[in-house]
Amino acid sequence: MKINKNYQNLEDSYLFSTIAKKVNEYAAENPSKSIIRLGIGDVTLPLAKAVVEAMHKAVDEMGVQATFRGYGPEQGYDFLRSVVQKYYASRNTDLSIDEIFISDGAKSDVGNILDLFDKDNTVLVPDPVYPVYVDTNTMAGRKIIFAEANESNGFLPMPDLSQKADIIYICSPNNPTGAVYNRNQLKQWVDYALENKAVILFDAAYECFISDKNLPRSIFEIEGAKKCAIEFCSFSKTAGFTGTRCGYTIVPDELIVDGIHLRKMWLRRQTTKFNGVPYIVQRGAEAVFSECGQKEIKQAIDYYRNNAKIIADTLDEKGIWYTGGKHSPYIWLKCPNGMDSWAFFDMLLNEIQVVGTPGAGFGKNGKNFFRLTSFGSDVKTKEAMERFSKLF
Amino acid sequence: MKINKNYQNLEDSYLFSTIAKKVNEYAAENPSKSIIRLGIGDVTLPLAKAVVEAMHKAVDEMGVQATFRGYGPEQGYDFLRSVVQKYYASRNTDLSIDEIFISDGAKSDVGNILDLFDKDNTVLVPDPVYPVYVDTNTMAGRKIIFAEANESNGFLPMPDLSQKADIIYICSPNNPTGAVYNRNQLKQWVDYALENKAVILFDAAYECFISDKNLPRSIFEIEGAKKCAIEFCSFSKTAGFTGTRCGYTIVPDELIVDGIHLRKMWLRRQTTKFNGVPYIVQRGAEAVFSECGQKEIKQAIDYYRNNAKIIADTLDEKGIWYTGGKHSPYIWLKCPNGMDSWAFFDMLLNEIQVVGTPGAGFGKNGKNFFRLTSFGSDVKTKEAMERFSKLF
Repeated sequence: MKINKNYQNLEDSYLFSTIAKKVNEYAAENPSKSIIRLGIGDVTLPLAKAVVEAMHKAVDEMGVQATFRGYGPEQGYDFLRSVVQKYYASRNTDLSIDEIFISDGAKSDVGNILDLFDKDNTVLVPDPVYPVYVDTNTMAGRKIIFAEANESNGFLPMPDLSQKADIIYICSPNNPTGAVYNRNQLKQWVDYALENKAVILFDAAYECFISDKNLPRSIFEIEGAKKCAIEFCSFSKTAGFTGTRCGYTIVPDELIVDGIHLRKMWLRRQTTKFNGVPYIVQRGAEAVFSECGQKEIKQAIDYYRNNAKIIADTLDEKGIWYTGGKHSPYIWLKCPNGMDSWAFFDMLLNEIQVVGTPGAGFGKNGKNFFRLTSFGSDVKTKEAMERFSKLF
Repeated sequence: MKINKNYQNLEDSYLFSTIAKKVNEYAAENPSKSIIRLGIGDVTLPLAKAVVEAMHKAVDEMGVQATFRGYGPEQGYDFLRSVVQKYYASRNTDLSIDEIFISDGAKSDVGNILDLFDKDNTVLVPDPVYPVYVDTNTMAGRKIIFAEANESNGFLPMPDLSQKADIIYICSPNNPTGAVYNRNQLKQWVDYALENKAVILFDAAYECFISDKNLPRSIFEIEGAKKCAIEFCSFSKTAGFTGTRCGYTIVPDELIVDGIHLRKMWLRRQTTKFNGVPYIVQRGAEAVFSECGQKEIKQAIDYYRNNAKIIADTLDEKGIWYTGGKHSPYIWLKCPNGMDSWAFFDMLLNEIQVVGTPGAGFGKNGKNFFRLTSFGSDVKTKEAMERFSKLF
């Protein structure tokens, strides 16, 4: 028996455990201080009423023989795929229902999709980056190269024609930087992928935070993308499904590598290694697209957007450089006075009892940057930024 | 970009599509005939009331900010892991909570676990077999060898010391044959695995159908198994969760290969490539273990067991050889008069309008065998076997 030795090349991440340890120690030593957490990457508002109602109905159906549902289609029920199809159509992107695969979240599928690709491919990921892109490819033993994201390119790296990549990760709006590619920039990535016969894995988990109609919310809004891209989306941040688990993956029929349809490969992969998302959850996700559901989730997204604005406005006032804040729940700020991100973390915790996430946790290019998020309460976010204002 | 070429070695399975086509054609030509389906591998009884209640409560919690749950632990909530721990303890198997991983079903994890192993391992699967074992390893490019299951060994192949295997699949009670290993037989497999430094992947999805206390329901009832086995279990057949999706995987802490704890590797895999099972579903699964839940699921299992007995009694009466029927929802019968399984399928459909599954669909050793299942209604099962009785 030989184990997969690639796991030994994984770097342990102590990011969130170190943060928790530091915060707990500080809280124990300073029991009277009120700590505000703006580091959280998880939603805090409850599920929409429309979703709750739909799930109650589905639970009842499952308790009665006549309406009970056993195994469903691995790629998702048509009732949900068809509303996702309409959601794309409303943004002028036509998809066939067979191109839409319901998943238990973007994170799973972003990793699982790699089953379709040979080990012998070069992977291009931006630095800084959501750690899952690097870890899943390290597990599979693939060569990883980085696209340098930094202040000078606004954390939106563009294709470097001297770099040869086969698999390209793009996350826009980005986690952790909140930066969003415009159409022209995405077009350059699509052209680069087509030219290099590469596949773009486009993580659109935060697309719902985009409010500017000129910014692309799907890579399929870009000409040629259906020939070179797979898109991952999620109800996690759109509709508060982080603990309810549902998303969708779009594999276009036109995406053909070496004469093989990746959509057909993915269907074979999913029918073999997945058994679909719970019926109850799919009914909940369907309700997200109802008139009521859309109204409610818009309110929640606006609430988070407003928090982001509170943070961004304070940074603007103080003249601190940042990306995100608009079209994203994340704000990625440059630590003042060239501070290291962990030193900045310690300062915020000790001086104003505000917790954020050191950029160093997302890659070497994050070492002087810091992530704040808008998923907390509006009152706490306001208070945190008032404290912040006094500090600088 | 190089795709994973191993997918081209997958054999397309036309088993269930061919069955559907034949049945639809027959039904169209014979609209007055009532067709009874005993080929179904899916449960038909609704979820237990205790499960339905628990899920309603959880849905309500998700709709209120104070009780809303976002990201949960990838390996499952402790409330569920601890009742699984107690379930094993009630059968005299002590597990630590860290050895229990909540999954979205046995099928997913039986495939996903292969991430931990090098491509360069030899896999031993019984023939006939649940097709997922072969397909997932074919996708990864591993060498597959077969353990011959047949009438002479009662479809319970024993280790062949001349065969060298690194990864060994055992499914007991077996799908499709319904055959169950006894303690002594499983001990021989454990000894063989320890001797060969192999890992056993033990699929216990049907353990709840075992009523004889002398038959092992978990491989961990066998001495030494914690050093060489991983166990997969599911609420699908235990509690009707085929459309609700929950199971659990046990990776013992003592399972160490080349100095590496597979439990730690699996934890790393799951935290990177999985985001846990929906909170609502985990609350439903927890209720399966409540006093009420246990009583209700026992009734459902007894109902299916009784169907199996109706089928087995008829075969006994007719002197037809079979495995399963006891301790399993499946009955695997030898086609009378040396018939081919597809010919037997056609005969049953045309003569008595009963649909089963040709054994040929599960491997070469199934070509003269036929699978019937007990997941239908008792009335229909009785009628099917009355028709069967008249035919032979």
